[in-house]
Amino acid sequence: MAAKNQVFIAIIGAGGVGKCFLGQLAKLAVRRPSTKLSLCYISTSKKALFNNDYSEISIDNAISSLSASSTAPPSLPDVVNYLAAAPSKVVLVDNTSSQDIADAYPLILSRGISIVTPNKKAFSGSNKLWQDIFAAAQSSGAKVYHESSVGAGLPVICTLKDLVETGDEVTKIEGVFSGTMSFLFNSFAPTTGSGGQWSAEVKKAKELGYTEPDPRDDLNGLDVARKLTILARLSGLAVESPTSFPVQSLIPKELESVASGDEFLERLPEFDSQMEQVKAEAQREGKVVRFVGSIDMATKSVKVGLEKFDLSHPIAALKGSDNIISFYTKRYGNSPLIVQGAGAGGEVTAMGVTADLLRVLSQIS
Amino acid sequence: MAAKNQVFIAIIGAGGVGKCFLGQLAKLAVRRPSTKLSLCYISTSKKALFNNDYSEISIDNAISSLSASSTAPPSLPDVVNYLAAAPSKVVLVDNTSSQDIADAYPLILSRGISIVTPNKKAFSGSNKLWQDIFAAAQSSGAKVYHESSVGAGLPVICTLKDLVETGDEVTKIEGVFSGTMSFLFNSFAPTTGSGGQWSAEVKKAKELGYTEPDPRDDLNGLDVARKLTILARLSGLAVESPTSFPVQSLIPKELESVASGDEFLERLPEFDSQMEQVKAEAQREGKVVRFVGSIDMATKSVKVGLEKFDLSHPIAALKGSDNIISFYTKRYGNSPLIVQGAGAGGEVTAMGVTADLLRVLSQIS
Repeated sequence: MAAKNQVFIAIIGAGGVGKCFLGQLAKLAVRRPSTKLSLCYISTSKKALFNNDYSEISIDNAISSLSASSTAPPSLPDVVNYLAAAPSKVVLVDNTSSQDIADAYPLILSRGISIVTPNKKAFSGSNKLWQDIFAAAQSSGAKVYHESSVGAGLPVICTLKDLVETGDEVTKIEGVFSGTMSFLFNSFAPTTGSGGQWSAEVKKAKELGYTEPDPRDDLNGLDVARKLTILARLSGLAVESPTSFPVQSLIPKELESVASGDEFLERLPEFDSQMEQVKAEAQREGKVVRFVGSIDMATKSVKVGLEKFDLSHPIAALKGSDNIISFYTKRYGNSPLIVQGAGAGGEVTAMGVTADLLRVLSQIS
Repeated sequence: MAAKNQVFIAIIGAGGVGKCFLGQLAKLAVRRPSTKLSLCYISTSKKALFNNDYSEISIDNAISSLSASSTAPPSLPDVVNYLAAAPSKVVLVDNTSSQDIADAYPLILSRGISIVTPNKKAFSGSNKLWQDIFAAAQSSGAKVYHESSVGAGLPVICTLKDLVETGDEVTKIEGVFSGTMSFLFNSFAPTTGSGGQWSAEVKKAKELGYTEPDPRDDLNGLDVARKLTILARLSGLAVESPTSFPVQSLIPKELESVASGDEFLERLPEFDSQMEQVKAEAQREGKVVRFVGSIDMATKSVKVGLEKFDLSHPIAALKGSDNIISFYTKRYGNSPLIVQGAGAGGEVTAMGVTADLLRVLSQIS
């Protein structure tokens, strides 16, 4: 191999995924001696850690050093200037779900800084932002990867890209794209037994940490709509935004504007009979109900919401909080390529980010 | 982007996969104008086509030009010398299942020629060959990818590599790795209904083109053993060879040495009662029998053969001739990462090769 290449790593975000990523990065730096990975920047929304001379920050101590830091994060343009002036190539790892940072991707990429991220916002926002991101990468040669924006570390984005880039044609994509929704419906409408009351299952899911602090942020379907937007675009559909196609919300109208998630949960039992009716209707057809997203390329339609499935269908047979994604393509015919497994969690989400980082390193170092 | 890069493509093998690959390559050359892909060599075991000045061979007409050629293929060392002297980088696409070519990979890679291939032989032969291949690539910087050596175009090798390289630990891999075996057992021992006689199912599979010309080449389990060898090595087990662990052959001892596949098929009904017994035993436990491969990292054991599965197990529920591969890892816990779909066929096998070629191009051009 050639002499040691140095690549600077900048990290924004040090929450659940960020901490797991740091752990994986520390091991990577040891295991991959052919490239010197130098952490040169790390920040949260409140604090930042960096050295003007780009001297290395210890990856192992990054979290404790960051919490000891009294430096507020510089403005995003200043961060970009700092990184663009680094004496070697830079990869920015955006471990946030910030729209502001996502909006800056075209600028960041145009300055030659590569990006790896689980942040869905950049790829599921306006179609213009999507176009700007890939145009900027194309012209500067910087790389941008976002495997964990759909299904965490599951091989979803890379598989879809491989299909499309090798000339296959996607005909349909269908699946369960939310660990929360998976858990809720696998418990509420199991293939064997009768399952619990809807409101009780939502409450349990929250207690087990499967939902956002306010469960409505899962039940509104927007998270799934964002993932579908990304997959549709990669398949060749120029979806305008995650609100430009039908998305079924599971939040009763009457509870949309209650003040808190707690109040929502308190009042949800009033609406159990509605969900019970949905379940019973499926049962009468020998089916179960699931919350799915689908893309039909022939009709150029994308939708998110409740669907009924035969008990023997792979979507019905899903367990726990697993995701499942079925790719129907011209080459694979009626028997789809299926990817299944945990689609959320710190370590598996960070794994997608780390794998993306390795992909970038193989190309730039 | 920078000025046009030229990369030379050399292809050995123009059978089913080779022809599909040429079709995909032709479209790729059009779709990827940033790299000039120049076909400089193509051969079968009988004929070769190349120009001493490396002038380009038309990809569209390669098959017809090759059949019109009266040039016998040069010796492998001569081909390597020709390719190593090309005026730009070279990727060799080995679309054969030749052991001789596989044995030359260390030489080819050491001369700076990258390799993409569905050929299992190189990666499932002796452990020394495996070591030599990756040592040669490491020292010359040439790349070697073999996605289609397991599960055709399904994302199996790349997923396993991502898991391992990002620091996850494989605990177990289990699956159905042969389209032929999948088809046979899904028909012989379906989860609903009683299925056909074993010998009749083998005959039907042959007629439908699901088996090798001599079905014993599928039934001996060696093809599955080769795939397991590859996955075990990538997981960190230094398996010595595909015959160094238990592999159950489904060829009755008495029929091992009959002269032809036809004679084998003619006499196979004599042994139906044996397979019927296996099926009945599983049924008594409420299970079905499947031909699977598994790797247990804790006990460092690899095995291939018949196993019984509950009807609700994903391996039992498989359809048609699909493959299924379950990765159990430390990060994914008890809920494995599962990849499922067609694991054989010209287009999907070629797709894995083309995707590998794209991976190499992103790194060398």
